[in-house]
Amino acid sequence: MRMRCALIALLMGVANSAAAQVNPEDAIHYRQSQFSVILWNWMPLNGMVRGRIPFDAKEFAKRAERVASVAPQLLEGFPAGSDSGAETSAKKDIWADFADFTAKMKTFEQASAKLATTARAGDEAAIKAQFAVVGDACKACHDKYKAE
Amino acid sequence: MRMRCALIALLMGVANSAAAQVNPEDAIHYRQSQFSVILWNWMPLNGMVRGRIPFDAKEFAKRAERVASVAPQLLEGFPAGSDSGAETSAKKDIWADFADFTAKMKTFEQASAKLATTARAGDEAAIKAQFAVVGDACKACHDKYKAE
Repeated sequence: MRMRCALIALLMGVANSAAAQVNPEDAIHYRQSQFSVILWNWMPLNGMVRGRIPFDAKEFAKRAERVASVAPQLLEGFPAGSDSGAETSAKKDIWADFADFTAKMKTFEQASAKLATTARAGDEAAIKAQFAVVGDACKACHDKYKAE
Repeated sequence: MRMRCALIALLMGVANSAAAQVNPEDAIHYRQSQFSVILWNWMPLNGMVRGRIPFDAKEFAKRAERVASVAPQLLEGFPAGSDSGAETSAKKDIWADFADFTAKMKTFEQASAKLATTARAGDEAAIKAQFAVVGDACKACHDKYKAE
């Protein structure tokens, strides 16, 4: 509802200058949205890698590309001060060592970019191996920075 | 919480075969996430066009590109049966005339792609004109298919 009202206000041109500012609640909502988009695309990749759905190289490449495209957009969802303001599973440790968090995000970014490249090349074994590398990058960050 | 659990299950490799299937709730959550990502990027564009924040051609192009990138990913968030299953402002009219809804989505897709191209070219007046075209494409679809 809040987002819908904001969009209507923007389209009507009546949003005030605060519209250009980032508040913690919006940042939290943004990053959760991006993670949901990643998950939406990751699920069929996971299904293909584990043999639960038929491997489709073109479909795999398309979704791997989308994950790789979102990856570099995640960090802006974690501005200082966004450790609270809405329900979030992001631990405060993120902002206590933002350099390490950033490094882990970059690892994910690079791994997912390589998955997209590998997927386009079409070697199924190489794709599955790189898929595991991306999964490890996800897990490394979640283990340290995501609350249960 | 649900999404987090799903992700953990996927990463652990214990998700069952249902993980590859789409249920209405997931589709609704996915499309709302994508619209939120669009809004996140649209807000600064709006601020620049309306002179509330300084016009930054590079920043504009980056965010216009992101909107254009999400646009072709929206339709898959509206599978048959996803008119209910979670709170949604999508009207049932969408599925009553899916061809028209699809056409409106394509109009948005093309308009946002042109905005990204125009933004890269850097002509501020042309950018602002195309920004209005994209806004009209949003509004045309919302007016008909989005509940108040």
